[in-house]
Amino acid sequence: MSEVPTAAISRLVTYLRILEELETREIVRTSSTDLAERAGVSAFQVRKDLAYFGRFGTRGLGYSVAILKRELMRVLGLNQTWNVVIVGVGRLGQAIANYPGASDYQFQYVGLFDVSPELVGRRVRDLTVRHIAELKDFVRENKVDMGFLAVPPERAQDAAQAMVTAGVRGILNFAPVVIGPRPLEGRSESRSADGNVLQDSGDDWRGVIVENVDFLAGMKRLAFYTLNPHLKDSPVPEDPA
Amino acid sequence: MSEVPTAAISRLVTYLRILEELETREIVRTSSTDLAERAGVSAFQVRKDLAYFGRFGTRGLGYSVAILKRELMRVLGLNQTWNVVIVGVGRLGQAIANYPGASDYQFQYVGLFDVSPELVGRRVRDLTVRHIAELKDFVRENKVDMGFLAVPPERAQDAAQAMVTAGVRGILNFAPVVIGPRPLEGRSESRSADGNVLQDSGDDWRGVIVENVDFLAGMKRLAFYTLNPHLKDSPVPEDPA
Repeated sequence: MSEVPTAAISRLVTYLRILEELETREIVRTSSTDLAERAGVSAFQVRKDLAYFGRFGTRGLGYSVAILKRELMRVLGLNQTWNVVIVGVGRLGQAIANYPGASDYQFQYVGLFDVSPELVGRRVRDLTVRHIAELKDFVRENKVDMGFLAVPPERAQDAAQAMVTAGVRGILNFAPVVIGPRPLEGRSESRSADGNVLQDSGDDWRGVIVENVDFLAGMKRLAFYTLNPHLKDSPVPEDPA
Repeated sequence: MSEVPTAAISRLVTYLRILEELETREIVRTSSTDLAERAGVSAFQVRKDLAYFGRFGTRGLGYSVAILKRELMRVLGLNQTWNVVIVGVGRLGQAIANYPGASDYQFQYVGLFDVSPELVGRRVRDLTVRHIAELKDFVRENKVDMGFLAVPPERAQDAAQAMVTAGVRGILNFAPVVIGPRPLEGRSESRSADGNVLQDSGDDWRGVIVENVDFLAGMKRLAFYTLNPHLKDSPVPEDPA
């Protein structure tokens, strides 16, 4: 499974969301055609995306919603607990901490970090906000699986560097800026704005996973399609989640 | 330009973000190879995506960062003002209202709506939160280009229906649920979890554009790649923004 396109993973996430929707509506069976229609991709794409990870359906009978949901959760690693720290506990960080549904996937917030004197020491949900300077010790002393970065854009790169230096290996970046290793002047970079592994030999970003949640990207796509609704008429296989 | 894949638009948004990053770093020229490397796609993909909308570079000389940025903003419709209403003014809605950078793209918040007695009548930024019941009149009396939906998931469908009924034609959905026309039992649907045009003959969702900003999708992708970092090793052309 060394050739799974990133877009296929985004689509698996979409299929899972659709399966959960079907389950809440007490629909027990679905098909690649049905999933494709709801996800805005082709049925062939659905079958191809699922085939990377196994055979989940029965020819002619389609898929059990419950089983396919369980299998996709297993594939995505959502059947295990993830310990998460949030860096940046302003409005956005607090919105994330209180975002519904995260706990359904066993994303557990174990630490909140900020630099603001108004926030450090305050209780948010059931946690006390710590100063970012404590992050490294915290990561050493606790099992931290990933960090959510919710600081202002101008602080994002430094905060991300602090997270990586502290040993955080996976970052969900909510700031509308590209974060990653900062190369020496003139040295070429190999990093992705879309969350690929950041490779910059000789520093601690190697192997760090970055995924981006960019509100502005959604706003920009919406602006484009509001101007060009005809371009949305037909779903396309490579439609991102 | 009737065959532009949705993923290409997401990539244009990523290219624009990279160009802005280059501009802040005072880099004045770039190339399809450079953009590709930073976006985690192939140079061929970059050239193909841009070619849908015109010829922006000079063979052998690459692209002017300033000109390509300006052209992408024009293509995406970001050189004009967008009047936005936010429906749901809790932590998330307030985080969105205060999210940095939106105003750089002339997304202007003209109305905030909620149902909570604690929120209706309160000032958030420079606006007074109105009751959702006022949305229809507000849309009739004001130019509203799009609406951001930031209510709890269990309220998202009803709130989205209220927005569409009120005449909002573009919705940026922050709730981790699929919103769209609710078909009569047994009637087949044609809608997209990824934001395609929702078509359900006989109701007011026809032509409505929905884009999703799903925190949980990012968390799920991050979970998967944290478990399978080797699958992130090489950028793939259809990598979503």
